[in-house]
Amino acid sequence: MLFENVGVLKADGTYLPAQYVGIRDSHIVWLSDTPPVEDFGERIDGKDRLLIPGLYNAHTHVAMTLMRGYGEELPLQSWLFDRIFPFEDKLFAEAVYWGSLLGMAEMLSTGTVSFTDMYYFCEETAKAALECGIKANIGRGVSCFDESKRFSDLPAYAELKELIPTYHESGDGRVRIDVAPHAEYTTRPDILRDTAAMAGEYGLRMQIHVSETNKEHLECVGRHGMTPTALLEQTGVLDRPLTVAHGVWLTDTDMERLAKHGTTVAHCAKSNMKLGSGIAQAEKLIRKGVPVAIGTDSAASNNALDMLDEMRMAGLLAKGVSCDPAAFPAATLLQCGTRGGALSQGREDCGDVALGYRADLVMLDMTDIGFCPAHAPLSNLLYGAGSRAVCMTVVDGHILYQNGEFTTLDIERIRLETQRCTDQILRM
Amino acid sequence: MLFENVGVLKADGTYLPAQYVGIRDSHIVWLSDTPPVEDFGERIDGKDRLLIPGLYNAHTHVAMTLMRGYGEELPLQSWLFDRIFPFEDKLFAEAVYWGSLLGMAEMLSTGTVSFTDMYYFCEETAKAALECGIKANIGRGVSCFDESKRFSDLPAYAELKELIPTYHESGDGRVRIDVAPHAEYTTRPDILRDTAAMAGEYGLRMQIHVSETNKEHLECVGRHGMTPTALLEQTGVLDRPLTVAHGVWLTDTDMERLAKHGTTVAHCAKSNMKLGSGIAQAEKLIRKGVPVAIGTDSAASNNALDMLDEMRMAGLLAKGVSCDPAAFPAATLLQCGTRGGALSQGREDCGDVALGYRADLVMLDMTDIGFCPAHAPLSNLLYGAGSRAVCMTVVDGHILYQNGEFTTLDIERIRLETQRCTDQILRM
Repeated sequence: MLFENVGVLKADGTYLPAQYVGIRDSHIVWLSDTPPVEDFGERIDGKDRLLIPGLYNAHTHVAMTLMRGYGEELPLQSWLFDRIFPFEDKLFAEAVYWGSLLGMAEMLSTGTVSFTDMYYFCEETAKAALECGIKANIGRGVSCFDESKRFSDLPAYAELKELIPTYHESGDGRVRIDVAPHAEYTTRPDILRDTAAMAGEYGLRMQIHVSETNKEHLECVGRHGMTPTALLEQTGVLDRPLTVAHGVWLTDTDMERLAKHGTTVAHCAKSNMKLGSGIAQAEKLIRKGVPVAIGTDSAASNNALDMLDEMRMAGLLAKGVSCDPAAFPAATLLQCGTRGGALSQGREDCGDVALGYRADLVMLDMTDIGFCPAHAPLSNLLYGAGSRAVCMTVVDGHILYQNGEFTTLDIERIRLETQRCTDQILRM
Repeated sequence: MLFENVGVLKADGTYLPAQYVGIRDSHIVWLSDTPPVEDFGERIDGKDRLLIPGLYNAHTHVAMTLMRGYGEELPLQSWLFDRIFPFEDKLFAEAVYWGSLLGMAEMLSTGTVSFTDMYYFCEETAKAALECGIKANIGRGVSCFDESKRFSDLPAYAELKELIPTYHESGDGRVRIDVAPHAEYTTRPDILRDTAAMAGEYGLRMQIHVSETNKEHLECVGRHGMTPTALLEQTGVLDRPLTVAHGVWLTDTDMERLAKHGTTVAHCAKSNMKLGSGIAQAEKLIRKGVPVAIGTDSAASNNALDMLDEMRMAGLLAKGVSCDPAAFPAATLLQCGTRGGALSQGREDCGDVALGYRADLVMLDMTDIGFCPAHAPLSNLLYGAGSRAVCMTVVDGHILYQNGEFTTLDIERIRLETQRCTDQILRM
């Protein structure tokens, strides 16, 4: 595949006009302002088009598209206990499968090539990801409210033991399994220690919710005499490659701990705002040397899985709260939403338009009004047109979405099956 | 025209499934869950479609699409003095015409049926609005930095004298002329008094920027011993029907003054965030009885003219800053973005889907992924799909935008002419 005469935005925000980008065997092997001599097969006209690195959604619960708009404008406790948990109690495997596909379709159509997921019925989400062609780090959520049970007694443990050989250790590494203790307040120190041990044993990455609300943060201090992040350090979780979701109420010392261990924080600005959880200090994290990636969180709290919208929001929020128009500049947002996300998933050869990198690419239509006039492609991308201008999404060199059509998904059926499963759950 | 079997969201957020909406002579004359007996001409299938009141953009400078992305991430003073003002110094009538059309196309394609504008070369914007079919309250900006000049000596005065008979007092009232002193810091008390007198004499509405930045607000107190709002009261401006843009730094007493006079505040959340001006207390204004409408401000600071995105942002910002997920609920956002905007323009029979109201309507495609599943059409509209699902925009019963096509505009030419004018200005 060869993109001809296409504008390229690299992960660091550099704009290269009129490039030739050649793909072979899932990788970018030509990137130049001159055309290659060799034949790359399919030729794609890049006139009036912009090619950017595929977006990495660093934190979501993809099957929760089933709960999009269910439980709006409620306080967090009521949202969880009156709406989300009762709905989830009735979830079944097929619903998670269709809800996952719906979320993947939404992500592909808005330029996301990979996502980090935390949920259960993980096999359904893994199957859906394999079928549709998107990349995913799928974390089996681990929680435990029974004092008598250890990690190895939990269904999550048994499920992980099956998921690892079936999905993580087979195939081409497109779908990976993470170990995902849900949070400090839904587990215990021994569970955290044991999940970290399992991740170490199998070479898996980890995910966890940390300091999303002030209440949760302070209650941990009350319970353990230390912040959630300090507890993660003490239990060995920070020694694993880890993505911390939210991190709204992290202390300066917490940030320094995360920086020391190279832990990524997945910044989920929209979800935190919508649930009234608070405002994470994303730029301070970056200044302190903490890797920052961008996540949408679930469609139950967001209510979209649109990474360009999420990046715009992260930028506007940082500027608005600090009263500094230079806060969280567009180039940094792009870096966090692409290369930062790829690194948080352990995908070293992903997240940029560069020679030798995987061909995870998004093409946008610069004839969209939001790209006119052409003063600044990067800010037109983030603050002008946004995801409505996405016209192609490519994962590992395969076109999965093009001009409103999915190449691997039957979106009409996915919509109908998702609605059917949702209706069935509401009738239970 | 008859919409058949269409879901309707009224301005107050009420959802009515499977309605029949009949239009005759620019007005809605049938709204019922049963079809009318009489023939309404063209029939529009409303299956899987949502009909909402047209959106009212209560504050913008539409021709500033010419400066979209020009001067990003600069502090306000540098943004104005190093980028915007030098660019504007080179503006010419034709550029304003094309830039206005570009902005109108962007608004129509994202569901906006009317806008309140403040700029100069107003005749160009008025001509563009008449040609394209959109509604507009076009305010001639008035500023004065020459102590020897009175209002009647200014070009704005002469221009208003021509605009009023040509545009305001002729035609069907779709395009109206407002008197728009730019701000306290760009005028003087005598200018404010004289503009209010002119508005009174001709029965015109007024617009003004108020307390957008803290600096501007405090400098007014230093200069006049009172806030900008108090000065507007003293100079008679609050006695006119008035839209105040921004109002970020209004005091409680200012809010009470505005409530007493029925002055609308145009809340421009995204622009205020992007320029780092601060965060307006929109919900407090509503609680105090101040009419609130929603504006995008210009594409130079936003960088989009997308009202659904603006309303989403206003909602998320209110929730995020207050840590209250119930803050600025979706139904209130819809009311502010539709009926609230219409009333701020003095259009009493606009801004709702209701019998006897003008047929200013937007239809959205509920097969968009963001509308799936169908738990809550209103939050799916604002927080799920947003403007990408807009498939039809109707003004006074005329379809101006449908499925990506404009009926009155040549978008390809508008894009090229806008770029040509922009390039010309940058070369000067």
